Amino acid sequence: MECLVLEARSRVGGRVMGGSVAGQAVEFGGTWIGEGHERMYALAAELGLPTFRTHNDDGQLLVDLGGRQSRMKPTKGAVPKLSPFALADLGQGLLRFARLAKGVDPERPWQHAHAATLDGQTFETWIRRNLRTPSGRAYFRIATEAVFAADPSDLSLLHALVYTASNADLETLLAVDHGAQQDRVVGGTVRIAEALATGLDIRLGSPVRAIQQSPNGIRAVCRDGATHAADRAIVAIPPTLAGRIDYDPILPSWRDQLTQKLPAGAVAKTFAANPTPFWRAAGLNGQAASDRGPVKVSFDVSPPDGLVGLLLGFVEGGDARRWVRLTQAERRRTVLDCFVRYFGPQAANPIDYAEQDWSAEEFSRGCYGAHFAPGVWTAYGEALRPPIGRIHWAGAEYATRWNGYMEGAVRSGTDTAREVLASLSAGAPTGT
Amino acid sequence: MECLVLEARSRVGGRVMGGSVAGQAVEFGGTWIGEGHERMYALAAELGLPTFRTHNDDGQLLVDLGGRQSRMKPTKGAVPKLSPFALADLGQGLLRFARLAKGVDPERPWQHAHAATLDGQTFETWIRRNLRTPSGRAYFRIATEAVFAADPSDLSLLHALVYTASNADLETLLAVDHGAQQDRVVGGTVRIAEALATGLDIRLGSPVRAIQQSPNGIRAVCRDGATHAADRAIVAIPPTLAGRIDYDPILPSWRDQLTQKLPAGAVAKTFAANPTPFWRAAGLNGQAASDRGPVKVSFDVSPPDGLVGLLLGFVEGGDARRWVRLTQAERRRTVLDCFVRYFGPQAANPIDYAEQDWSAEEFSRGCYGAHFAPGVWTAYGEALRPPIGRIHWAGAEYATRWNGYMEGAVRSGTDTAREVLASLSAGAPTGT
Repeated sequence: MECLVLEARSRVGGRVMGGSVAGQAVEFGGTWIGEGHERMYALAAELGLPTFRTHNDDGQLLVDLGGRQSRMKPTKGAVPKLSPFALADLGQGLLRFARLAKGVDPERPWQHAHAATLDGQTFETWIRRNLRTPSGRAYFRIATEAVFAADPSDLSLLHALVYTASNADLETLLAVDHGAQQDRVVGGTVRIAEALATGLDIRLGSPVRAIQQSPNGIRAVCRDGATHAADRAIVAIPPTLAGRIDYDPILPSWRDQLTQKLPAGAVAKTFAANPTPFWRAAGLNGQAASDRGPVKVSFDVSPPDGLVGLLLGFVEGGDARRWVRLTQAERRRTVLDCFVRYFGPQAANPIDYAEQDWSAEEFSRGCYGAHFAPGVWTAYGEALRPPIGRIHWAGAEYATRWNGYMEGAVRSGTDTAREVLASLSAGAPTGT
Repeated sequence: MECLVLEARSRVGGRVMGGSVAGQAVEFGGTWIGEGHERMYALAAELGLPTFRTHNDDGQLLVDLGGRQSRMKPTKGAVPKLSPFALADLGQGLLRFARLAKGVDPERPWQHAHAATLDGQTFETWIRRNLRTPSGRAYFRIATEAVFAADPSDLSLLHALVYTASNADLETLLAVDHGAQQDRVVGGTVRIAEALATGLDIRLGSPVRAIQQSPNGIRAVCRDGATHAADRAIVAIPPTLAGRIDYDPILPSWRDQLTQKLPAGAVAKTFAANPTPFWRAAGLNGQAASDRGPVKVSFDVSPPDGLVGLLLGFVEGGDARRWVRLTQAERRRTVLDCFVRYFGPQAANPIDYAEQDWSAEEFSRGCYGAHFAPGVWTAYGEALRPPIGRIHWAGAEYATRWNGYMEGAVRSGTDTAREVLASLSAGAPTGT
């Protein structure tokens, strides 16, 4: 069997993208492999790519809430030092959320006994109802931005639960050790994409503009007019972009309306390189969590040898929307202001600075992934994964386990490849 | 100045579309002109197209809630006969909603003092909080489906308020006399589109696939490869479809993410023709409002002479999504079952039946218009109307007054034409 990959970009990897800051390899896109990401660890091992631990437990995490700073242990499930009242509030909120998430099946969330109620409200509504203290609410809002690159108002409560259940639990999503940010790949995750690409028939710079489907097969038409015939197609791009392809015949309404309703999050990654990871000497691990942006969450992404100090700052959701409209000088200044606030005046004059705005990328138009607004899972969830005739779907958004992560993308890819093989050996398209 | 219209369809009118049932002209799309729709009345008069009253006050409206039927006067602002408790509940809910809507400025809703709170919740959340009785909630849900072709879970509360404020008030949106459904055009509203098209340079069957923008002007590329040059472009299609055009340079992230977040509603129109409008003799006016679908709302759309009896049934929101997946025979049967339930067994065997599913239309992919999920007005509202360089936007979704109606579309068109003229006489694009 032959397989042809039509890649829109001039490089492979998509939302996984290599970059360089102060001469060091960094990830401009997907970065971490975490506990439970079995396929990714296996893939890295198979491809001979070593991994290393994210700099974490040699220092403390900086918490900046309501203008007051404190430190906390970077242990999975740890919560910030708060007043007893706020702590009780947050503890109860986390427990309630965990209980709700445990009851949701990420494969069929629309079948939940209370699906209509869970999907009829925003995550913001749930936070306001279940958290009473400003600190408790801030914790959930920062966590939402960090995990979804979206604001709690953008998300259905059911979607927050589905995503969390698909990724074990909220603690795993937020943690470094034993969590989703545990390990990195030496040289960057793009090496995995590049290694996988070796030996594949890939046409770079070939964005698909149209997919024609007939009883005899598929014809994909690229922007430059080149056409390619096939028995089956796998559309492995974010749902909102999949909706922009010109399908002939047009997609059934339920599939088209689904893609109308799966927007991408908004996030920019920012990097500041310092001669040394100076925060380590101060007992900090380079991680910050704040209710004041534009950078509300940061990480130490220095190379394994620690000879250069690299800070990664995420600008997410509403912060990203506002921040991208500033001038480059203002963007840099506001980001560095955050780093100074978290790690001190030494952060003011980095030797290098870089940023990557994913919403400005023609072939992503947002990151990390699609989010479901209220009503979408219950109304259109069933239309997400089934193929349409000879057209199949794959990507991090389609994964039932580790949704949104590289691990989910690989699992979805494998599942869809199996689906296509089964459909080919059955001789007829399995889709509706 | 020259103006070229590139029309995707093989006909003019877009979401205004003529049709015929039992040999009588009907509207498969936009149907009514209502109180306050001044431009539309003026346009009809200018084009010599007579209007006539929607059949209304010669009979009563049938209310079918919780399995019980009652009748009510078809007067603007009238509410169904309910138990005293439900009536008080509904009255209070309507009053609260009206007060909230009055405080919203449809031109700049993001500036409302409580914009974040209003936009952080679904309309469903508001209904559950503010209505206590099943009948009160049913009233708001049926009204939402009828007005938005969407479920209350799909909408931000702020959007429900913006739309209502833009269309006077909820009573006007729902009413026939003195309301949005007051008048019809003899021969159908499509005659307005056809009359307007006379003398214009229109290329039918020319869907625009790409818009290229340079310091010298615009180049539009149609699906068949034909290209057209211009100084300015007005993109006058629903936002979700505007997002599918291949722009070069690509749109700024805030504009692209906006169109990712403006899905179209789901609605199908169904028609049953009977030898006579038999329901009139029974004291009914052909209008029904029910909490049981697929047709929850109906109208008498018989021709002015009343020699044939035409019933129009709307299938909206979640009902539309489920109903379009039935077989044609099942669709017809379930629709006629509703008409029989409302108007008696005479409705079971019409002399003609027709349906129009707007989500299946390649160049609409839903109706009546776009809706804003929670968070979208506050995050992206400011990006809705400003041009992007030489590219301007127009359509019912962009109107600040009578948004969503033909009246709003005409006003938006006029406003945008003025904007383009001003930009041309200034010599430079006004957009960012």
